[in-house]
Amino acid sequence: MGTTQLESVPEPKYWHLKTVLSDALDSEFAVGEILPNERELAARFGVARATLRQALEQLELEGRLQRRRGVGTTVAPPRVGVAVGDYTHSWTDTAGDDAWQSVDSVETVPPAAIARLLKTGPDTRVHRVRRTRMSKGQPLAAELLYVPAESVPGLAAIDAPSGLARARAVLRELSRLELEGREQSVELGSARAEDAKELDRLPGAPVLVVTTRYAASGRTAAVAVATYRADTCRLTFGDPAGEELLAG
Amino acid sequence: MGTTQLESVPEPKYWHLKTVLSDALDSEFAVGEILPNERELAARFGVARATLRQALEQLELEGRLQRRRGVGTTVAPPRVGVAVGDYTHSWTDTAGDDAWQSVDSVETVPPAAIARLLKTGPDTRVHRVRRTRMSKGQPLAAELLYVPAESVPGLAAIDAPSGLARARAVLRELSRLELEGREQSVELGSARAEDAKELDRLPGAPVLVVTTRYAASGRTAAVAVATYRADTCRLTFGDPAGEELLAG
Repeated sequence: MGTTQLESVPEPKYWHLKTVLSDALDSEFAVGEILPNERELAARFGVARATLRQALEQLELEGRLQRRRGVGTTVAPPRVGVAVGDYTHSWTDTAGDDAWQSVDSVETVPPAAIARLLKTGPDTRVHRVRRTRMSKGQPLAAELLYVPAESVPGLAAIDAPSGLARARAVLRELSRLELEGREQSVELGSARAEDAKELDRLPGAPVLVVTTRYAASGRTAAVAVATYRADTCRLTFGDPAGEELLAG
Repeated sequence: MGTTQLESVPEPKYWHLKTVLSDALDSEFAVGEILPNERELAARFGVARATLRQALEQLELEGRLQRRRGVGTTVAPPRVGVAVGDYTHSWTDTAGDDAWQSVDSVETVPPAAIARLLKTGPDTRVHRVRRTRMSKGQPLAAELLYVPAESVPGLAAIDAPSGLARARAVLRELSRLELEGREQSVELGSARAEDAKELDRLPGAPVLVVTTRYAASGRTAAVAVATYRADTCRLTFGDPAGEELLAG
Protein backbone atom coordinates (compact mmCIF):
# COMPACT_ATOMS: atom_id res chain seq x y z
CA MET A 1 0.00 0.00 0.00
CA GLY A 2 2.96 2.34 0.32
CA THR A 3 1.73 3.99 3.52
CA THR A 4 4.84 2.89 5.36
CA GLN A 5 6.82 5.37 3.35
CA LEU A 6 4.50 8.23 4.33
CA GLU A 7 4.44 7.22 7.97
CA SER A 8 8.13 7.97 8.26
CA VAL A 9 7.71 11.42 6.69
CA PRO A 10 7.39 14.07 9.42
CA GLU A 11 4.46 16.50 9.20
CA PRO A 12 5.53 19.22 6.74
CA LYS A 13 6.32 22.62 8.24
CA TYR A 14 3.65 24.39 6.15
CA TRP A 15 1.06 21.99 7.53
CA HIS A 16 1.76 22.98 11.10
CA LEU A 17 1.80 26.63 10.06
CA LYS A 18 -1.57 26.15 8.37
CA THR A 19 -3.10 25.00 11.65
CA VAL A 20 -1.61 27.96 13.51
CA LEU A 21 -2.80 30.39 10.83
CA SER A 22 -6.26 28.83 10.83
CA ASP A 23 -6.57 29.43 14.57
CA ALA A 24 -5.39 33.03 14.08
CA LEU A 25 -8.09 33.53 11.41
CA ASP A 26 -10.74 32.34 13.87
CA SER A 27 -9.60 34.53 16.72
CA GLU A 28 -8.17 37.69 15.17
CA PHE A 29 -9.75 38.32 11.78
CA ALA A 30 -13.23 39.03 10.44
CA VAL A 31 -14.67 37.87 7.12
CA GLY A 32 -13.48 40.16 4.31
CA GLU A 33 -10.54 41.50 6.29
CA ILE A 34 -7.26 41.83 4.39
CA LEU A 35 -4.35 39.85 5.84
CA PRO A 36 -0.95 41.48 6.39
CA ASN A 37 1.37 40.96 3.43
CA GLU A 38 3.49 37.82 3.03
CA ARG A 39 6.65 39.46 4.33
CA GLU A 40 4.95 40.57 7.56
CA LEU A 41 3.22 37.21 8.06
CA ALA A 42 6.43 35.26 7.44
CA ALA A 43 8.22 37.44 10.02
CA ARG A 44 5.42 37.12 12.57
CA PHE A 45 5.37 33.32 12.39
CA GLY A 46 9.12 32.95 11.93
CA VAL A 47 8.93 30.97 8.69
CA ALA A 48 10.35 31.27 5.18
CA ARG A 49 8.20 32.97 2.53
CA ALA A 50 7.94 29.69 0.60
CA THR A 51 6.57 27.89 3.67
CA LEU A 52 4.08 30.68 4.28
CA ARG A 53 2.93 30.58 0.67
CA GLN A 54 2.29 26.82 0.87
CA ALA A 55 0.21 27.27 4.03
CA LEU A 56 -1.80 30.08 2.38
CA GLU A 57 -2.44 27.81 -0.61
CA GLN A 58 -3.83 25.13 1.71
CA LEU A 59 -6.15 27.61 3.40
CA GLU A 60 -7.28 28.78 -0.02
CA LEU A 61 -8.06 25.16 -1.02
CA GLU A 62 -10.15 24.82 2.13
CA GLY A 63 -12.09 27.98 1.34
CA ARG A 64 -10.75 29.92 4.33
CA LEU A 65 -8.85 32.52 2.30
CA GLN A 66 -9.37 34.25 -1.02
CA ARG A 67 -6.49 35.69 -3.00
CA ARG A 68 -7.31 38.35 -5.54
CA ARG A 69 -4.98 40.26 -7.80
CA GLY A 70 -4.62 43.85 -6.71
CA VAL A 71 -6.56 43.27 -3.49
CA GLY A 72 -4.41 40.84 -1.55
CA THR A 73 -5.43 37.94 0.65
CA THR A 74 -8.75 38.27 2.45
CA VAL A 75 -10.64 36.09 4.93
CA ALA A 76 -13.30 34.23 2.93
CA PRO A 77 -16.97 34.10 3.88
CA PRO A 78 -18.41 30.59 4.45
CA ARG A 79 -19.00 28.70 1.21
CA VAL A 80 -22.45 28.96 -0.37
CA GLY A 81 -24.53 25.78 -0.66
CA VAL A 82 -25.45 25.42 -4.34
CA ALA A 83 -28.06 22.82 -5.31
CA VAL A 84 -26.93 20.82 -8.33
CA GLY A 85 -28.98 17.66 -7.83
CA ASP A 86 -32.55 18.94 -7.62
CA TYR A 87 -35.08 17.51 -10.03
CA THR A 88 -37.10 20.69 -10.43
CA HIS A 89 -35.30 21.97 -13.45
CA SER A 90 -35.93 24.86 -15.77
CA TRP A 91 -34.16 25.39 -19.08
CA THR A 92 -35.29 28.96 -19.42
CA ASP A 93 -33.34 31.84 -17.95
CA THR A 94 -34.13 32.63 -14.35
CA ALA A 95 -33.59 35.76 -12.30
CA GLY A 96 -33.23 36.44 -8.59
CA ASP A 97 -30.83 35.02 -6.04
CA ASP A 98 -30.00 31.92 -8.07
CA ALA A 99 -30.10 32.90 -11.73
CA TRP A 100 -29.26 31.04 -14.91
CA GLN A 101 -28.37 33.31 -17.81
CA SER A 102 -27.93 32.18 -21.41
CA VAL A 103 -24.88 33.62 -23.12
CA ASP A 104 -24.71 32.22 -26.65
CA SER A 105 -24.99 29.12 -28.81
CA VAL A 106 -22.88 27.75 -31.64
CA GLU A 107 -22.87 24.56 -33.68
CA THR A 108 -19.71 22.59 -33.05
CA VAL A 109 -18.19 19.11 -32.87
CA PRO A 110 -18.14 18.26 -29.13
CA PRO A 111 -15.05 16.90 -27.33
CA ALA A 112 -14.63 13.12 -27.75
CA ALA A 113 -15.75 12.38 -24.17
CA ILE A 114 -19.01 14.29 -24.73
CA ALA A 115 -19.63 12.64 -28.10
CA ARG A 116 -19.34 9.26 -26.36
CA LEU A 117 -21.98 10.27 -23.80
CA LEU A 118 -24.27 11.62 -26.51
CA LYS A 119 -23.58 8.58 -28.71
CA THR A 120 -23.17 10.90 -31.69
CA GLY A 121 -20.58 10.11 -34.33
CA PRO A 122 -17.06 11.52 -33.97
CA ASP A 123 -17.67 14.36 -36.46
CA THR A 124 -21.33 15.12 -35.75
CA ARG A 125 -22.01 18.76 -34.94
CA VAL A 126 -24.27 19.59 -31.99
CA HIS A 127 -25.63 22.78 -30.46
CA ARG A 128 -23.40 24.09 -27.70
CA VAL A 129 -25.21 26.54 -25.43
CA ARG A 130 -23.15 28.55 -22.97
CA ARG A 131 -24.87 29.58 -19.74
CA THR A 132 -23.79 31.28 -16.53
CA ARG A 133 -25.17 30.66 -13.08
CA MET A 134 -25.15 33.73 -10.85
CA SER A 135 -25.92 34.32 -7.21
CA LYS A 136 -26.20 37.82 -5.75
CA GLY A 137 -24.26 39.29 -8.66
CA GLN A 138 -21.42 36.76 -8.31
CA PRO A 139 -20.76 34.06 -10.92
CA LEU A 140 -21.06 30.55 -9.44
CA ALA A 141 -20.67 28.44 -12.56
CA ALA A 142 -20.02 28.52 -16.29
CA GLU A 143 -21.87 25.80 -18.17
CA LEU A 144 -21.53 24.30 -21.64
CA LEU A 145 -24.69 22.43 -22.64
CA TYR A 146 -24.34 20.04 -25.60
CA VAL A 147 -27.59 19.32 -27.45
CA PRO A 148 -27.78 16.99 -30.47
CA ALA A 149 -30.01 18.20 -33.33
CA GLU A 150 -32.42 15.28 -32.80
CA SER A 151 -33.25 16.55 -29.28
CA VAL A 152 -34.59 19.82 -30.70
CA PRO A 153 -36.40 18.83 -33.93
CA GLY A 154 -38.65 21.89 -33.77
CA LEU A 155 -35.72 24.31 -33.99
CA ALA A 156 -36.52 26.42 -37.08
CA ALA A 157 -33.95 27.57 -39.58
CA ILE A 158 -35.54 30.97 -39.09
CA ASP A 159 -34.14 31.19 -35.56
CA ALA A 160 -30.89 33.16 -35.31
CA PRO A 161 -27.93 30.95 -36.38
CA SER A 162 -25.87 31.77 -33.29
CA GLY A 163 -25.63 34.09 -30.29
CA LEU A 164 -28.03 34.72 -27.44
CA ALA A 165 -31.23 34.48 -29.53
CA ARG A 166 -30.11 31.07 -30.79
CA ALA A 167 -29.31 29.91 -27.24
CA ARG A 168 -32.83 30.84 -26.12
CA ALA A 169 -34.37 29.06 -29.11
CA VAL A 170 -32.42 25.84 -28.38
CA LEU A 171 -33.41 25.94 -24.69
CA ARG A 172 -37.05 26.65 -25.59
CA GLU A 173 -37.14 23.56 -27.81
CA LEU A 174 -35.24 21.48 -25.25
CA SER A 175 -37.87 22.33 -22.62
CA ARG A 176 -40.48 20.54 -24.76
CA LEU A 177 -38.73 17.23 -24.03
CA GLU A 178 -39.96 15.18 -21.12
CA LEU A 179 -36.90 14.29 -19.07
CA GLU A 180 -36.77 10.79 -17.58
CA GLY A 181 -33.92 11.40 -15.23
CA ARG A 182 -30.37 12.53 -15.00
CA GLU A 183 -27.01 11.21 -13.90
CA GLN A 184 -24.31 13.40 -12.49
CA SER A 185 -20.66 13.25 -11.64
CA VAL A 186 -18.40 15.70 -9.82
CA GLU A 187 -14.65 15.90 -10.17
CA LEU A 188 -11.79 18.29 -9.53
CA GLY A 189 -10.56 20.34 -12.45
CA SER A 190 -8.67 23.51 -13.26
CA ALA A 191 -10.48 26.45 -14.86
CA ARG A 192 -10.00 26.76 -18.61
CA ALA A 193 -9.11 30.28 -19.75
CA GLU A 194 -12.64 31.02 -21.03
CA ASP A 195 -14.38 29.72 -17.92
CA ALA A 196 -11.91 31.48 -15.67
CA LYS A 197 -12.83 34.79 -17.28
CA GLU A 198 -16.54 34.18 -16.74
CA LEU A 199 -15.94 33.10 -13.15
CA ASP A 200 -13.68 36.04 -12.38
CA ARG A 201 -10.76 33.71 -11.59
CA LEU A 202 -7.33 33.16 -13.10
CA PRO A 203 -6.86 30.27 -15.55
CA GLY A 204 -5.93 27.10 -13.71
CA ALA A 205 -7.81 27.91 -10.48
CA PRO A 206 -9.25 24.75 -8.90
CA VAL A 207 -12.86 24.18 -9.91
CA LEU A 208 -15.52 21.51 -9.40
CA VAL A 209 -16.67 20.11 -12.72
CA VAL A 210 -20.23 18.76 -12.70
CA THR A 211 -21.15 16.61 -15.69
CA THR A 212 -24.88 15.96 -16.10
CA ARG A 213 -26.44 13.54 -18.56
CA TYR A 214 -30.12 14.25 -19.24
CA ALA A 215 -32.14 11.24 -20.40
CA ALA A 216 -35.31 11.41 -22.50
CA SER A 217 -37.07 8.78 -24.62
CA GLY A 218 -34.50 6.20 -23.52
CA ARG A 219 -31.49 8.09 -24.83
CA THR A 220 -29.16 10.93 -23.84
CA ALA A 221 -30.97 14.14 -24.77
CA ALA A 222 -28.23 16.53 -23.65
CA VAL A 223 -25.02 16.70 -21.64
CA ALA A 224 -24.04 19.67 -19.50
CA VAL A 225 -20.52 20.37 -18.26
CA ALA A 226 -20.71 22.99 -15.53
CA THR A 227 -17.60 24.48 -13.97
CA TYR A 228 -18.26 25.67 -10.41
CA ARG A 229 -15.97 27.92 -8.40
CA ALA A 230 -14.41 25.63 -5.82
CA ASP A 231 -13.44 28.52 -3.57
CA THR A 232 -16.97 29.78 -2.93
CA CYS A 233 -19.28 26.82 -3.67
CA ARG A 234 -20.35 23.76 -1.72
CA LEU A 235 -22.39 21.58 -4.07
CA THR A 236 -25.50 20.02 -2.54
CA PHE A 237 -27.49 17.03 -3.71
CA GLY A 238 -31.01 16.42 -2.44
CA ASP A 239 -34.18 18.25 -1.51
CA PRO A 240 -34.15 21.89 -0.38
CA ALA A 241 -35.23 21.01 3.18
CA GLY A 242 -32.24 18.74 3.58
CA GLU A 243 -29.94 21.35 2.14
CA GLU A 244 -31.12 23.89 4.65
CA LEU A 245 -30.36 21.47 7.43
CA LEU A 246 -26.90 20.82 6.03
CA ALA A 247 -26.28 24.52 5.64
CA GLY A 248 -27.46 25.18 9.22
CA MET B 1 -18.09 42.30 -11.75
CA GLY B 2 -14.34 42.76 -11.94
CA THR B 3 -13.94 40.74 -15.13
CA THR B 4 -12.54 43.78 -16.91
CA GLN B 5 -9.43 43.50 -14.82
CA LEU B 6 -8.92 39.85 -15.82
CA GLU B 7 -9.60 40.52 -19.49
CA SER B 8 -6.50 42.67 -19.70
CA VAL B 9 -4.32 39.96 -18.12
CA PRO B 10 -2.60 37.93 -20.85
CA GLU B 11 -2.87 34.12 -20.69
CA PRO B 12 -0.19 33.00 -18.23
CA LYS B 13 2.82 31.23 -19.71
CA TYR B 14 2.22 28.06 -17.66
CA TRP B 15 -1.28 27.85 -19.06
CA HIS B 16 -0.04 27.70 -22.64
CA LEU B 17 2.63 25.19 -21.60
CA LYS B 18 -0.07 23.08 -19.93
CA THR B 19 -1.93 22.77 -23.24
CA VAL B 20 1.26 21.83 -25.07
CA LEU B 21 2.17 19.27 -22.40
CA SER B 22 -1.35 17.85 -22.44
CA ASP B 23 -1.08 17.22 -26.18
CA ALA B 24 2.33 15.59 -25.66
CA LEU B 25 0.82 13.28 -23.02
CA ASP B 26 -1.86 12.20 -25.51
CA SER B 27 0.56 11.51 -28.32
CA GLU B 28 3.81 10.36 -26.74
CA PHE B 29 3.15 8.78 -23.37
CA ALA B 30 1.26 5.77 -22.07
CA VAL B 31 -0.61 5.49 -18.77
CA GLY B 32 1.84 4.78 -15.94
CA GLU B 33 4.86 5.99 -17.89
CA ILE B 34 7.34 8.13 -15.94
CA LEU B 35 7.92 11.60 -17.39
CA PRO B 36 11.44 12.94 -17.90
CA ASN B 37 12.64 14.97 -14.90
CA GLU B 38 11.84 18.67 -14.50
CA ARG B 39 15.22 19.82 -15.77
CA GLU B 40 14.87 17.85 -18.99
CA LEU B 41 11.26 18.91 -19.53
CA ALA B 42 12.06 22.58 -18.89
CA ALA B 43 14.89 22.38 -21.43
CA ARG B 44 12.75 20.61 -24.01
CA PHE B 45 9.95 23.18 -23.85
CA GLY B 46 12.27 26.15 -23.35
CA VAL B 47 10.67 27.36 -20.12
CA ALA B 48 11.84 28.15 -16.60
CA ARG B 49 11.57 25.42 -13.97
CA ALA B 50 8.98 27.50 -12.05
CA THR B 51 6.76 27.74 -15.13
CA LEU B 52 7.07 24.02 -15.76
CA ARG B 53 6.17 23.25 -12.17
CA GLN B 54 3.01 25.37 -12.39
CA ALA B 55 1.93 23.57 -15.56
CA LEU B 56 2.57 20.18 -13.93
CA GLU B 57 0.46 21.26 -10.96
CA GLN B 58 -2.43 22.12 -13.30
CA LEU B 59 -2.21 18.73 -15.00
CA GLU B 60 -2.17 17.08 -11.59
CA LEU B 61 -5.36 19.01 -10.63
CA GLU B 62 -7.00 17.75 -13.79
CA GLY B 63 -6.06 14.17 -13.02
CA ARG B 64 -3.70 13.81 -15.98
CA LEU B 65 -0.53 13.37 -13.92
CA GLN B 66 0.34 11.80 -10.59
CA ARG B 67 3.33 12.87 -8.57
CA ARG B 68 4.68 10.42 -6.04
CA ARG B 69 7.65 10.78 -3.71
CA GLY B 70 10.50 8.57 -4.81
CA VAL B 71 8.79 7.60 -8.07
CA GLY B 72 8.52 10.86 -9.97
CA THR B 73 5.74 12.11 -12.20
CA THR B 74 3.70 9.50 -14.04
CA VAL B 75 0.86 9.64 -16.55
CA ALA B 76 -2.34 8.99 -14.58
CA PRO B 77 -4.95 6.42 -15.57
CA PRO B 78 -8.48 7.79 -16.18
CA ARG B 79 -10.29 8.64 -12.96
CA VAL B 80 -12.49 5.96 -11.43
CA GLY B 81 -16.22 6.65 -11.18
CA VAL B 82 -17.17 6.21 -7.51
CA ALA B 83 -20.86 6.10 -6.60
CA VAL B 84 -21.57 8.28 -3.57
CA GLY B 85 -25.27 8.95 -4.09
CA ASP B 86 -26.79 5.48 -4.34
CA TYR B 87 -29.62 4.61 -1.98
CA THR B 88 -28.71 0.96 -1.62
CA HIS B 89 -26.58 1.35 1.43
CA SER B 90 -24.93 -1.11 3.73
CA TRP B 91 -23.38 -0.22 7.06
CA THR B 92 -21.58 -3.51 7.41
CA ASP B 93 -18.12 -4.06 5.99
CA THR B 94 -18.03 -5.14 2.36
CA ALA B 95 -15.36 -6.86 0.33
CA GLY B 96 -14.57 -7.04 -3.36
CA ASP B 97 -13.93 -4.30 -5.90
CA ASP B 98 -15.63 -1.59 -3.86
CA ALA B 99 -15.05 -2.36 -0.20
CA TRP B 100 -15.85 -0.50 2.99
CA GLN B 101 -13.63 -1.45 5.91
CA SER B 102 -14.19 -0.38 9.50
CA VAL B 103 -11.07 0.81 11.27
CA ASP B 104 -12.02 1.86 14.80
CA SER B 105 -14.49 3.77 16.96
CA VAL B 106 -14.08 6.22 19.81
CA GLU B 107 -16.42 8.41 21.85
CA THR B 108 -15.65 12.06 21.24
CA VAL B 109 -17.14 15.56 21.08
CA PRO B 110 -17.67 16.22 17.35
CA PRO B 111 -16.50 19.42 15.59
CA ALA B 112 -18.95 22.32 16.00
CA ALA B 113 -20.22 22.05 12.40
CA ILE B 114 -21.08 18.37 12.92
CA ALA B 115 -22.75 19.03 16.27
CA ARG B 116 -24.98 21.59 14.52
CA LEU B 117 -26.03 19.00 11.92
CA LEU B 118 -26.67 16.38 14.60
CA LYS B 119 -28.43 18.95 16.82
CA THR B 120 -26.50 17.61 19.78
CA GLY B 121 -25.34 20.04 22.48
CA PRO B 122 -21.86 21.58 22.19
CA ASP B 123 -20.27 19.17 24.68
CA THR B 124 -22.23 16.01 23.89
CA ARG B 125 -20.05 13.01 23.10
CA VAL B 126 -20.96 10.83 20.12
CA HIS B 127 -19.55 7.66 18.57
CA ARG B 128 -17.03 8.41 15.85
CA VAL B 129 -16.48 5.44 13.56
CA ARG B 130 -13.56 5.55 11.17
CA ARG B 131 -13.95 3.63 7.90
CA THR B 132 -11.93 3.28 4.71
CA ARG B 133 -13.29 2.74 1.23
CA MET B 134 -11.00 0.64 -0.98
CA SER B 135 -11.05 -0.30 -4.63
CA LYS B 136 -8.70 -2.88 -6.09
CA GLY B 137 -6.32 -2.50 -3.15
CA GLN B 138 -6.21 1.29 -3.47
CA PRO B 139 -7.76 3.61 -0.86
CA LEU B 140 -10.50 5.82 -2.35
CA ALA B 141 -11.80 7.52 0.77
CA ALA B 142 -11.35 7.93 4.51
CA GLU B 143 -14.62 8.44 6.36
CA LEU B 144 -15.52 9.68 9.81
CA LEU B 145 -19.06 8.67 10.76
CA TYR B 146 -20.59 10.53 13.72
CA VAL B 147 -23.39 8.65 15.51
CA PRO B 148 -25.26 10.08 18.52
CA ALA B 149 -25.94 7.61 21.35
CA GLU B 150 -29.71 7.87 20.77
CA SER B 151 -29.29 6.42 17.25
CA VAL B 152 -27.86 3.19 18.66
CA PRO B 153 -29.88 2.53 21.84
CA GLY B 154 -29.19 -1.20 21.67
CA LEU B 155 -25.43 -0.76 21.95
CA ALA B 156 -24.49 -2.80 25.00
CA ALA B 157 -21.91 -1.73 27.55
CA ILE B 158 -20.51 -5.22 27.10
CA ASP B 159 -19.34 -4.34 23.56
CA ALA B 160 -15.69 -3.33 23.37
CA PRO B 161 -15.27 0.33 24.48
CA SER B 162 -13.24 1.30 21.39
CA GLY B 163 -11.35 -0.10 18.43
CA LEU B 164 -12.50 -2.27 15.55
CA ALA B 165 -14.91 -4.43 17.58
CA ARG B 166 -16.63 -1.28 18.86
CA ALA B 167 -16.87 0.11 15.30
CA ARG B 168 -18.59 -3.06 14.14
CA ALA B 169 -20.99 -2.99 17.10
CA VAL B 170 -21.98 0.66 16.38
CA LEU B 171 -22.54 -0.10 12.69
CA ARG B 172 -24.54 -3.24 13.53
CA GLU B 173 -26.87 -1.19 15.74
CA LEU B 174 -27.05 1.63 13.20
CA SER B 175 -28.19 -0.82 10.53
CA ARG B 176 -31.32 -1.50 12.62
CA LEU B 177 -32.52 2.04 11.92
CA GLU B 178 -34.82 2.59 8.98
CA LEU B 179 -33.32 5.44 6.96
CA GLU B 180 -35.75 7.96 5.47
CA GLY B 181 -33.31 9.63 3.16
CA ARG B 182 -30.06 11.43 3.00
CA GLU B 183 -28.69 14.78 1.95
CA GLN B 184 -25.23 15.24 0.56
CA SER B 185 -22.80 18.00 -0.23
CA VAL B 186 -19.44 17.97 -2.00
CA GLU B 187 -16.72 20.54 -1.59
CA LEU B 188 -13.02 20.97 -2.18
CA GLY B 189 -10.70 20.44 0.77
CA SER B 190 -7.12 19.63 1.62
CA ALA B 191 -6.26 16.29 3.21
CA ARG B 192 -5.75 16.40 6.98
CA ALA B 193 -2.61 14.61 8.15
CA GLU B 194 -4.52 11.54 9.39
CA ASP B 195 -6.63 11.18 6.23
CA ALA B 196 -3.60 11.77 4.03
CA LYS B 197 -1.87 8.81 5.64
CA GLU B 198 -4.87 6.55 5.06
CA LEU B 199 -5.17 7.75 1.47
CA ASP B 200 -1.46 7.35 0.75
CA ARG B 201 -1.14 11.08 0.00
CA LEU B 202 0.80 13.94 1.54
CA PRO B 203 -1.01 16.27 3.98
CA GLY B 204 -2.62 19.14 2.11
CA ALA B 205 -3.30 17.23 -1.12
CA PRO B 206 -6.57 18.38 -2.73
CA VAL B 207 -9.50 16.15 -1.77
CA LEU B 208 -13.25 16.07 -2.35
CA VAL B 209 -15.10 16.18 0.95
CA VAL B 210 -18.53 14.52 0.87
CA THR B 211 -20.76 15.30 3.85
CA THR B 212 -23.81 13.05 4.19
CA ARG B 213 -26.66 13.55 6.63
CA TYR B 214 -28.68 10.39 7.24
CA ALA B 215 -32.28 10.98 8.35
CA ALA B 216 -34.36 8.53 10.40
CA SER B 217 -37.51 9.07 12.49
CA GLY B 218 -37.58 12.71 11.43
CA ARG B 219 -34.16 13.57 12.80
CA THR B 220 -30.50 13.32 11.85
CA ALA B 221 -29.43 9.79 12.75
CA ALA B 222 -25.80 10.15 11.69
CA VAL B 223 -23.43 12.38 9.74
CA ALA B 224 -20.58 11.07 7.63
CA VAL B 225 -17.63 13.15 6.44
CA ALA B 226 -15.82 11.23 3.72
CA THR B 227 -12.58 12.48 2.21
CA TYR B 228 -12.13 11.20 -1.36
CA ARG B 229 -8.89 11.34 -3.32
CA ALA B 230 -9.44 14.07 -5.89
CA ASP B 231 -6.65 12.78 -8.11
CA THR B 232 -8.16 9.36 -8.80
CA CYS B 233 -11.91 9.72 -8.10
CA ARG B 234 -14.83 11.07 -10.09
CA LEU B 235 -17.84 11.06 -7.77
CA THR B 236 -21.09 9.91 -9.35
CA PHE B 237 -24.65 10.52 -8.21
CA GLY B 238 -27.47 8.37 -9.53
CA ASP B 239 -28.30 4.82 -10.49
CA PRO B 240 -25.57 2.36 -11.58
CA ALA B 241 -26.90 2.18 -15.16
CA GLY B 242 -26.52 5.91 -15.54
CA GLU B 243 -23.07 5.79 -14.05
CA GLU B 244 -21.96 3.21 -16.57
CA LEU B 245 -23.17 5.45 -19.34
CA LEU B 246 -21.31 8.41 -17.85
CA ALA B 247 -18.18 6.32 -17.43
CA GLY B 248 -18.43 5.06 -21.01
